[in-house]
Amino acid sequence: MTLVAGRLPTGADLARWASADASARPLRLAALRERMAQEGVGAYFGVRRENTRYLTGFELGEGEENSGQFLVGLDDLAVLADSRYWIQAAEQCPDARVERVYNDVFERWPQLLAGVGSPKRVAIEAGFVSHLTWQRLAAAAPDVELVVAENWVETLRQVKEPAEIERIAAACAVTDAALSRILPTLRPGMTEIEVALALEWEIRTGGAEALAFDVTVLSGPRAAMPHGSPTQRRLALGEVLLFDIGSQVAGYRSDMTRTLFVGEPSSRDLDIYALVARAQQAPIDALAAATAAGERPSGRALHIVARDVIATAGHGDHFGHGLGHGIGLATHELPGLGMTAPDEPLPSPTVFTSEPGVYLDTEMGVRIEDTLVFDADARRLDRLTLFPREVTVVG
Amino acid sequence: MTLVAGRLPTGADLARWASADASARPLRLAALRERMAQEGVGAYFGVRRENTRYLTGFELGEGEENSGQFLVGLDDLAVLADSRYWIQAAEQCPDARVERVYNDVFERWPQLLAGVGSPKRVAIEAGFVSHLTWQRLAAAAPDVELVVAENWVETLRQVKEPAEIERIAAACAVTDAALSRILPTLRPGMTEIEVALALEWEIRTGGAEALAFDVTVLSGPRAAMPHGSPTQRRLALGEVLLFDIGSQVAGYRSDMTRTLFVGEPSSRDLDIYALVARAQQAPIDALAAATAAGERPSGRALHIVARDVIATAGHGDHFGHGLGHGIGLATHELPGLGMTAPDEPLPSPTVFTSEPGVYLDTEMGVRIEDTLVFDADARRLDRLTLFPREVTVVG
Repeated sequence: MTLVAGRLPTGADLARWASADASARPLRLAALRERMAQEGVGAYFGVRRENTRYLTGFELGEGEENSGQFLVGLDDLAVLADSRYWIQAAEQCPDARVERVYNDVFERWPQLLAGVGSPKRVAIEAGFVSHLTWQRLAAAAPDVELVVAENWVETLRQVKEPAEIERIAAACAVTDAALSRILPTLRPGMTEIEVALALEWEIRTGGAEALAFDVTVLSGPRAAMPHGSPTQRRLALGEVLLFDIGSQVAGYRSDMTRTLFVGEPSSRDLDIYALVARAQQAPIDALAAATAAGERPSGRALHIVARDVIATAGHGDHFGHGLGHGIGLATHELPGLGMTAPDEPLPSPTVFTSEPGVYLDTEMGVRIEDTLVFDADARRLDRLTLFPREVTVVG
Repeated sequence: MTLVAGRLPTGADLARWASADASARPLRLAALRERMAQEGVGAYFGVRRENTRYLTGFELGEGEENSGQFLVGLDDLAVLADSRYWIQAAEQCPDARVERVYNDVFERWPQLLAGVGSPKRVAIEAGFVSHLTWQRLAAAAPDVELVVAENWVETLRQVKEPAEIERIAAACAVTDAALSRILPTLRPGMTEIEVALALEWEIRTGGAEALAFDVTVLSGPRAAMPHGSPTQRRLALGEVLLFDIGSQVAGYRSDMTRTLFVGEPSSRDLDIYALVARAQQAPIDALAAATAAGERPSGRALHIVARDVIATAGHGDHFGHGLGHGIGLATHELPGLGMTAPDEPLPSPTVFTSEPGVYLDTEMGVRIEDTLVFDADARRLDRLTLFPREVTVVG
């Protein structure tokens, strides 16, 4: 496995990535239209903002999903925007027709469909459209058959283009640097919230346009919560300190977890740490070996490799989540790497996390997580999160 | 109208609010069960995180909606949590049964229903449950009738308890202070992003647990975007500078917009500002007069009051959104104050915004927004956002 250092983005990088996206969008749309043809639908109605950005260029943040729905016809592309976003949509979607809506999507649905070739069957992102919206669309054009589309675009998104991987690597570099910068400031007595805010500030002023998700800082027994928010609890000697952090660069995200020790760790804690470190590396080694042999395991198989390491050590009940997840425009996306993931070969090239944990309720927890890029054809498996994984003592 | 200054929250305030919520939750649940009885359903399945917090106490952030679904039976309350949230849910929901789920809600649906009295008809938050989820729930228990529930809990949430209003007032006080603190630092040449980051830092370190939404800072012609994100554009003399900011205190949110001037404004810009100021105050005056007379206008009627002021001045085409919105656990909630709002009396006590704008595409824009609390019985209309609305020159 190679360590690959992302570069903090320059203005030239941002321009190059925007240009790469503009060139890639027609190919992405062509791939979706191929799926549409296979499924016998004449249009695709999407609402998920990551898919909007991927296919149209329209960039919306969390909570801005009132706009950004899009309709892909066999020859047409339309994005919907209310008055708050008309100017932005026109700037960001030069290849799409901007349909100006005002809370009147249902009334205008027949006309919107007429604008993309009057399809008889329309695929809908049924996992993201509410049931109420589905009902109203069905009622607004009763002769049009609505078809459940699940993961049609997400399946395309799991295969990453070079300019997408560069952005994820850049996002990893931002969190690496941020964690490095706060390390020498950590002291017993600081609160989790103080540490989280300092870390967020480093991420936000260190090259990221946003956090990928709220910074997680959990100390001592709180690290047993696989997903908790920082509190006023104070760091104390002899405890673990768990960071789960990610940043966003030009739309793409990183994800990294490190568990440090405040002062000298106990031998029990070191044992748990060593176990998690082995469980985290085992699927990486397995994938590297498979890649070298020209094979491609499934995400579920990799999960089982890590799970077996932990279960063999008697901690199977203390690892309740999956090994990891794909990452890109969304923090969690395809491919899945857990017990419920399909037993089919990993896509390639793809970017995913390896993040097993052992959680001892009311005592402590350890999770170690890296973001990795896998390229079967190039026979490469690279690690993008460079912050050391060795036992690290702070404070 | 009275100005009411919120207090920055102390630890004692936080404890008092938590206690008020714990006391209020049985009443909130009783009100929902009354609606359930009217509609003839034996259970209510909710997924919206604001509703989860309101009825159960379980606090989840944006993007954490994989957990936090809840089932209200006639006598039971269950919250669903995956392993990442088991400990947190048990702490925050002492009155609810925590159902441990692992991506297996559909398989466990019949058993979950058995746990709340085996209802024959179940109301579902159809505006927030995806169509795919609805289909799977229907298939998992084919004998159970699923009923569309729209705004059942949201209608309860629009009427605010005293401890809810206190938190919104506190959130308003945080943004008032944050904007005041950065005012003397503003200079031509600063970028929108620099200003936004400084403002966010003041909010986050000044008593808020989070932003209510991403800070909006728009300069010059970019203020014509009713909803835009800050960019690298630099502040320049003779231009407007629009801030739309909100903070969150103990779950509750504030919302305020101010449009300042960098250097001396032109007479055209002052005219637009005066127009928007009149349009913003007119519905407040109308509501105050109605309140004094013991009447209760609708949100739509108040929108029309503001809209008429702007249309009479010839700028009707430059005001494309509604007058405002309710605010509480969500930034945008009931009651509506726009053209599509129902023509029924405002609820009371309630908290809402008045925020008309005039947007001159490619030139400039002005919006002024306050958060207000209306109490019909007390015949009061108070303003919670205290930052001055007079023409303010900075830089």
